[in-house]
Amino acid sequence: MPRTDLLFDDLPRYSAAATAPADFDDFWAQTLDEAARHDAAAVAVPYPGPLTTLEVFDVSFSGYGGHPVKAWLALPRHRSGRLPCVVRYPGYGNGRSSPLDALEYASCGYAQLVMDVRGQGTSEKGTGDTPDPEGSPHPHRPGFMTKGVLDPRHYYYRRVITDAVRAVAAARTLDSVDPDRVAVAGGSQGGGLAVAAGALAPGVAAVVADVPFLSHFRRAAEVAAEGPYLEISEYCRAHRDSTERVFTTLAYADALNFASRATAPAAFSAAGMDPVTPPSTCYAVYNAYAGPKRMRLWEFNGHEGGGVFAVERNLAFLAEHVG
Amino acid sequence: MPRTDLLFDDLPRYSAAATAPADFDDFWAQTLDEAARHDAAAVAVPYPGPLTTLEVFDVSFSGYGGHPVKAWLALPRHRSGRLPCVVRYPGYGNGRSSPLDALEYASCGYAQLVMDVRGQGTSEKGTGDTPDPEGSPHPHRPGFMTKGVLDPRHYYYRRVITDAVRAVAAARTLDSVDPDRVAVAGGSQGGGLAVAAGALAPGVAAVVADVPFLSHFRRAAEVAAEGPYLEISEYCRAHRDSTERVFTTLAYADALNFASRATAPAAFSAAGMDPVTPPSTCYAVYNAYAGPKRMRLWEFNGHEGGGVFAVERNLAFLAEHVG
Amino acid sequence: MPRTDLLFDDLPRYSAAATAPADFDDFWAQTLDEAARHDAAAVAVPYPGPLTTLEVFDVSFSGYGGHPVKAWLALPRHRSGRLPCVVRYPGYGNGRSSPLDALEYASCGYAQLVMDVRGQGTSEKGTGDTPDPEGSPHPHRPGFMTKGVLDPRHYYYRRVITDAVRAVAAARTLDSVDPDRVAVAGGSQGGGLAVAAGALAPGVAAVVADVPFLSHFRRAAEVAAEGPYLEISEYCRAHRDSTERVFTTLAYADALNFASRATAPAAFSAAGMDPVTPPSTCYAVYNAYAGPKRMRLWEFNGHEGGGVFAVERNLAFLAEHVG
Amino acid sequence: MPRTDLLFDDLPRYSAAATAPADFDDFWAQTLDEAARHDAAAVAVPYPGPLTTLEVFDVSFSGYGGHPVKAWLALPRHRSGRLPCVVRYPGYGNGRSSPLDALEYASCGYAQLVMDVRGQGTSEKGTGDTPDPEGSPHPHRPGFMTKGVLDPRHYYYRRVITDAVRAVAAARTLDSVDPDRVAVAGGSQGGGLAVAAGALAPGVAAVVADVPFLSHFRRAAEVAAEGPYLEISEYCRAHRDSTERVFTTLAYADALNFASRATAPAAFSAAGMDPVTPPSTCYAVYNAYAGPKRMRLWEFNGHEGGGVFAVERNLAFLAEHVG
Amino acid sequence: MPRTDLLFDDLPRYSAAATAPADFDDFWAQTLDEAARHDAAAVAVPYPGPLTTLEVFDVSFSGYGGHPVKAWLALPRHRSGRLPCVVRYPGYGNGRSSPLDALEYASCGYAQLVMDVRGQGTSEKGTGDTPDPEGSPHPHRPGFMTKGVLDPRHYYYRRVITDAVRAVAAARTLDSVDPDRVAVAGGSQGGGLAVAAGALAPGVAAVVADVPFLSHFRRAAEVAAEGPYLEISEYCRAHRDSTERVFTTLAYADALNFASRATAPAAFSAAGMDPVTPPSTCYAVYNAYAGPKRMRLWEFNGHEGGGVFAVERNLAFLAEHVG
Amino acid sequence: MPRTDLLFDDLPRYSAAATAPADFDDFWAQTLDEAARHDAAAVAVPYPGPLTTLEVFDVSFSGYGGHPVKAWLALPRHRSGRLPCVVRYPGYGNGRSSPLDALEYASCGYAQLVMDVRGQGTSEKGTGDTPDPEGSPHPHRPGFMTKGVLDPRHYYYRRVITDAVRAVAAARTLDSVDPDRVAVAGGSQGGGLAVAAGALAPGVAAVVADVPFLSHFRRAAEVAAEGPYLEISEYCRAHRDSTERVFTTLAYADALNFASRATAPAAFSAAGMDPVTPPSTCYAVYNAYAGPKRMRLWEFNGHEGGGVFAVERNLAFLAEHVG
Repeated sequence: MPRTDLLFDDLPRYSAAATAPADFDDFWAQTLDEAARHDAAAVAVPYPGPLTTLEVFDVSFSGYGGHPVKAWLALPRHRSGRLPCVVRYPGYGNGRSSPLDALEYASCGYAQLVMDVRGQGTSEKGTGDTPDPEGSPHPHRPGFMTKGVLDPRHYYYRRVITDAVRAVAAARTLDSVDPDRVAVAGGSQGGGLAVAAGALAPGVAAVVADVPFLSHFRRAAEVAAEGPYLEISEYCRAHRDSTERVFTTLAYADALNFASRATAPAAFSAAGMDPVTPPSTCYAVYNAYAGPKRMRLWEFNGHEGGGVFAVERNLAFLAEHVG
Repeated sequence: MPRTDLLFDDLPRYSAAATAPADFDDFWAQTLDEAARHDAAAVAVPYPGPLTTLEVFDVSFSGYGGHPVKAWLALPRHRSGRLPCVVRYPGYGNGRSSPLDALEYASCGYAQLVMDVRGQGTSEKGTGDTPDPEGSPHPHRPGFMTKGVLDPRHYYYRRVITDAVRAVAAARTLDSVDPDRVAVAGGSQGGGLAVAAGALAPGVAAVVADVPFLSHFRRAAEVAAEGPYLEISEYCRAHRDSTERVFTTLAYADALNFASRATAPAAFSAAGMDPVTPPSTCYAVYNAYAGPKRMRLWEFNGHEGGGVFAVERNLAFLAEHVG
Repeated sequence: MPRTDLLFDDLPRYSAAATAPADFDDFWAQTLDEAARHDAAAVAVPYPGPLTTLEVFDVSFSGYGGHPVKAWLALPRHRSGRLPCVVRYPGYGNGRSSPLDALEYASCGYAQLVMDVRGQGTSEKGTGDTPDPEGSPHPHRPGFMTKGVLDPRHYYYRRVITDAVRAVAAARTLDSVDPDRVAVAGGSQGGGLAVAAGALAPGVAAVVADVPFLSHFRRAAEVAAEGPYLEISEYCRAHRDSTERVFTTLAYADALNFASRATAPAAFSAAGMDPVTPPSTCYAVYNAYAGPKRMRLWEFNGHEGGGVFAVERNLAFLAEHVG
Repeated sequence: MPRTDLLFDDLPRYSAAATAPADFDDFWAQTLDEAARHDAAAVAVPYPGPLTTLEVFDVSFSGYGGHPVKAWLALPRHRSGRLPCVVRYPGYGNGRSSPLDALEYASCGYAQLVMDVRGQGTSEKGTGDTPDPEGSPHPHRPGFMTKGVLDPRHYYYRRVITDAVRAVAAARTLDSVDPDRVAVAGGSQGGGLAVAAGALAPGVAAVVADVPFLSHFRRAAEVAAEGPYLEISEYCRAHRDSTERVFTTLAYADALNFASRATAPAAFSAAGMDPVTPPSTCYAVYNAYAGPKRMRLWEFNGHEGGGVFAVERNLAFLAEHVG
Repeated sequence: MPRTDLLFDDLPRYSAAATAPADFDDFWAQTLDEAARHDAAAVAVPYPGPLTTLEVFDVSFSGYGGHPVKAWLALPRHRSGRLPCVVRYPGYGNGRSSPLDALEYASCGYAQLVMDVRGQGTSEKGTGDTPDPEGSPHPHRPGFMTKGVLDPRHYYYRRVITDAVRAVAAARTLDSVDPDRVAVAGGSQGGGLAVAAGALAPGVAAVVADVPFLSHFRRAAEVAAEGPYLEISEYCRAHRDSTERVFTTLAYADALNFASRATAPAAFSAAGMDPVTPPSTCYAVYNAYAGPKRMRLWEFNGHEGGGVFAVERNLAFLAEHVG
Repeated sequence: MPRTDLLFDDLPRYSAAATAPADFDDFWAQTLDEAARHDAAAVAVPYPGPLTTLEVFDVSFSGYGGHPVKAWLALPRHRSGRLPCVVRYPGYGNGRSSPLDALEYASCGYAQLVMDVRGQGTSEKGTGDTPDPEGSPHPHRPGFMTKGVLDPRHYYYRRVITDAVRAVAAARTLDSVDPDRVAVAGGSQGGGLAVAAGALAPGVAAVVADVPFLSHFRRAAEVAAEGPYLEISEYCRAHRDSTERVFTTLAYADALNFASRATAPAAFSAAGMDPVTPPSTCYAVYNAYAGPKRMRLWEFNGHEGGGVFAVERNLAFLAEHVG
């Protein structure tokens, strides 16, 4: 897997101009206001299974449009008091998967809430249980990147980002969770959502964004060699007259624009040979990030990034900020 | 592009058992009855453009659920009397494209009606203008093959096949069209839809099905090496416990089951090195076809099949039956 | 299909030094003089077929060396007076194909003359009927790019470019054609030939060159990732001591050198992710073009370029200049 | 990922003749006797880390030749009495990884012992800490499959299988483990080792073998399209005169020959589109297995097999036999 | 490189029906008679260079149509009497290369004559110096397989096979060569030519045919996954109506039909995982071969076959028959 | 094979900073002193075979640690006096192969000594007979690049470079060899070893280094797209915390650091489209080389470089310096 983006030495200096439209803040304020009209309370039903050191709950909360969104809540079976919480967002194509997947945060003492990404979850790595009830007002490329992309109000990620913000609110309604110690975390799509939720949800205590996706769409569409950014270039390849309209919509969901509005401490990573979320796009977001921040470049890695090395780094970061 | 299916000599003998569920005929009768409650009349608006030998109309008719479906109608500018009509269905991923595409039937004296396939049309080869307003009640693989696949009533192709049948009815409402001489035609997805519409729409005069898709899903999911059948295997790859449910739904949309109910004369083709619609699956449908039929194997071709050689063959076949 | 050439923003500024040898103009003047000794009159034989809105003629004219070159002439069946004419040159590997292919110019009121490219025409997309009777005085790579490449006088494209110029002369001998309104057009190889014929044939009214091939061979051989330019690098890879000789010959056929001698108005296009005719090579020719000109970059497209969007743009351009 | 092995319907009937050399049982008896001269007692050192629901120990035990082999032991922090134990063997190329990986057995109440595979562990999915101190008496292909393959006594897997058997003995020396309830488990290479250890280690209570590797080498070397079996064919490709010698050695490490000597209840799986451990080779071992057994075919899966679906199935199987 | 043809165990039984047209023998008798009208005497000019143990001559002889064909003659510098001779034919795409290539036969005491294959020789592995002065009377696929393929008299390999036969005659005119001990040898294309020349040239003493090409074209065109056989399937892919005509011509050049007319002792080889000349096609020729014969299957090899192992085997075979 | 490194015009200027650790010279002095304690005398056993113009000897000499290393010595059978000698080092993965391979230096009058590279030699292009008796003190990637890479003293190439230096000393003990005219030569790995041996072995008369490997590891690991440099990036991909340690060790084996200590005349080459040893890394070594030097860029070649053109160039260079 050779390098296809900038040389390692040139990455740290890479930054990009903000692309936020003038009504960006209004757009999101209004969007979240509408969502907030629905009850934020998470419904958590005990979920039987073979785990003995953890307790699992099948959670449902109201996301964008009041649509029910599923999540798994995993808690240490032996616990006392309210726990710090990590809200996790899956990578592109994956759902919340099985409660037997991704046990590490709960096994380290956190309340872990793994949100379904609506409509996604048909990967052999993890399935999901939450449909996206909204259609697209126009044909779109297979996948989610261009669903509704001709209009910010109907764009798919407007709904998903709203869900991600609502998941933070829902987590805070859980008895087991300390509402002042809620972090957001994820890799790839999950990292992009963490940056967005960290900026939009008030009082998020920490943000973990590994090899973040949804970052600097303009460059990403031009340099990504694999993965879902290609849906955007393929859409533009067909709809040759819609390019500007597409990127105008994408600007509302670009982590670049959330980063400059963020205040929570954040741990970023990028991978030097990542063809899916090219490291220059991750650095662009990192360099735009307005809160306290750290970055780790996994030089020779592809989109898998730091793997379990990143898990260890993230656990140390979380221990520092919400542990 | 080497052969990946049966040896050429073994293809003609390949046949498959029918997979139609017991309520197959009821299912479709009821589906079409519901659709027929909406007015079938096509609305055809003259569409200006550079063509001088043809007249083009931007057509809209009511498809499944009364949803508006777009089509292009192209007619010879110099014409007299009602014309035989060819209703064309696009290949997977394509829409009705531009009226400047696919001029050959109209230039040969037919009224040509090119239907949009709802939701599709984001290919660099041809865009579409008709959304699929229905969502999926469960996550599905990117693409259309598994949208709603857990329930025949919500399956995407239930809507598309209904549109295809309604397009025939709509064509017959056009002043320029002789309702007794309506043929259906297409390649790949268009070929599968032609077989379905030919069986379900009463009085179709001829069916052209080149390298038909939507054919013998069980084998196709196992042997196709490229293309949209892989969406099915990938869905089953993730949802390892839903395989039987998936194939039960698919049986309602399988050309194999429409073929045995058909009566119109049909021209089929298959391609010996086709990794997308493997020739054995095309022969399975051909061998099940109950009407008068012919088959042409393009031995060394891939999914492009006969190309313009097939156009010539199809024009001769249509001249014989509806010319 | 990721970008493999310059970033989009850097393309418009890309230009290249001319490479024309000192005897370039003499070489072509002498070459065309020799060809002009043969009778230019096209022989057009009515060609029966299923088309009813168009009339088709099987055309033969004398090309380089007086060799017969085939073409299809398509005319609107209902016409009056002499028509503006578009001489089309196929893409690499394709011949004039079937008269059922590429109906759009004739259907828009033009006399369309589709020239065979000698020796080519064994693509599944379109066959040809014109052999190249000349051999190569030395072994060459499979394909046409290095046939005779060690000597400009025996180089394959000397013959093809001459054919392209002669096609313009032949078109003007047709009763149906207005000799003052002959345009040349093509994509890829056809675009390169259009630039060459536009510069060499006196009085060409307009030039359409989409994603032109045969353009800036030096850079192309170094940066093209797919397609026929690779034949050049592969030849040099084998004949490691012939590199300079190869590029000296190629300079006689390089659109870069024709562009700077052109005067006709021209419409260019390039595709931002084109691995076959890299956009920098198209911009090099465009920036060297000496006549009135326009350029369209299809940012996210590969070698298919603008597709039917380009057809619409080209029809508008032609209407402006020869319509 | 299309099918490259037998059709699904033909898999269950696939079986193969045993290939065990006459001295197979003596070879292994002697090999294990030698290993047993070293002290079996595992040394388990508490390993600090962020996990709170589990306790982790850095384990070392003496494997083949008395070489120290590392493992991670993970136990529920809240436990009482001796626990049933699962000895896990990693897949090819992976080591024991981090204790933060693969928490599910311990989180379900088992003592989980994850053994390093000597020399392996340089995968981005998991690193290892145990070298293989023995060299190869002859050059071998990069990788482990042909290290020492010209002589069964020096063959790499002689050492690894011995380590696997010794891991069972070592597990039984742990205070926390109930020696009568030790199961062996793994996928791919881990599955092949589980079959071998289940046959060679007396009293193993259950065997889990997902998509087992090291199975029916003869056919595997001929039909595997990807993965480490290719090292064998590549070795034979170079050493064209050593083929029989290679397969004679491999027979000593072939799960096919261990299977027919097994008595423990076993849960197998195979994947219908697995290019790495082709399903026919898994069925060959399954059909040869002499103990109580069950098999699950994941029809549309590749080498990932059942994923978390398999974890659930395996936990149920283990609960039945050692829970 | 996985197997893509029959299982190893099924190869030895594979045979094919002869495809020789009725006039096959007349065709070749007449062809060779015409060639024999030109003087067979080879012109050998000493060629200076760095070799000290060998002497090299730049040879020219008259091939098909009296066209001059180049060859390298290499002889041991220290020699006495007339030497046995090996006439070598290169693989597809290669020419006689440099005299520094392929020294082994001359270094073992043979007069080695390496013939250029007309028109070929633009591979990075070896260049050639002999053009094919004949063009093709119809467009053909890039490469040589379909040059003139619509008419046996103009088919490219008619000329090359004639050259190969004439090379034997030319070799016998050399002072240094014992005319009774001339063998023909080659791999791939060279192997197919050796079978043809061995059958057509009277008195050839031995034939070496490694992984022979030009063998059983019908099956080869259907099963070859890479290499020049694909030119045939690609030609048929374009010229969908010429398939039978193509294979009728190919039958005149098929080693299958020469094999059944051969009498010289022959050493064959095939490679079990050869995607270029599939082993079944080699076995078909071997099983049809009418002279004394031996076959070696290199089970795990691709098109490189036995490599230097085959050289050793061939030298032993030649020592036995012409040494 | 498109270019993946710098543009051709930018290559000549590319240079890199030296990376030699402070103890680099001591490290190698001590290493070679230890090796010199073993007897350097080569044992040369006549090796029967079919060659008549050359004599072959099966050679063994003591390499690193006194380990026996095999080589083939080939001499002109007719010779007088002591001969100039070329010590050749194979490319990565290859061994000394058969004495029938690579005859050109001996056939041009040189004593040719082809050294085995310990542990290597399982390529279909050439096998080897020399094992590497040392294991690795830690797991390493399949292959040799990271065997012992965590410690310069245990690094695999410490042993191989020592063998290469010892081969020069051994060559000088042969009766047939003129000790003052010993050159070292190789391509790829062989080229890197030639640079190292040329710098470390006193009195080497000439160095031939084609497309040298083991050159400027830092850049190579980042830009190589294929081949063994990827083992380094893959190791770092797994062992994300060992990157600096890896490159520290590699600096002891980097041709960049040997080049600046060299004095012998050297002939280098690089290939403009080489994905295995990117040309910039070759130029970095060339530009650092301290002795008389020449460079040839094979612009359009991949890793095959100049092929037989390079052989001719190298023979001329050797004739000039040791002939």
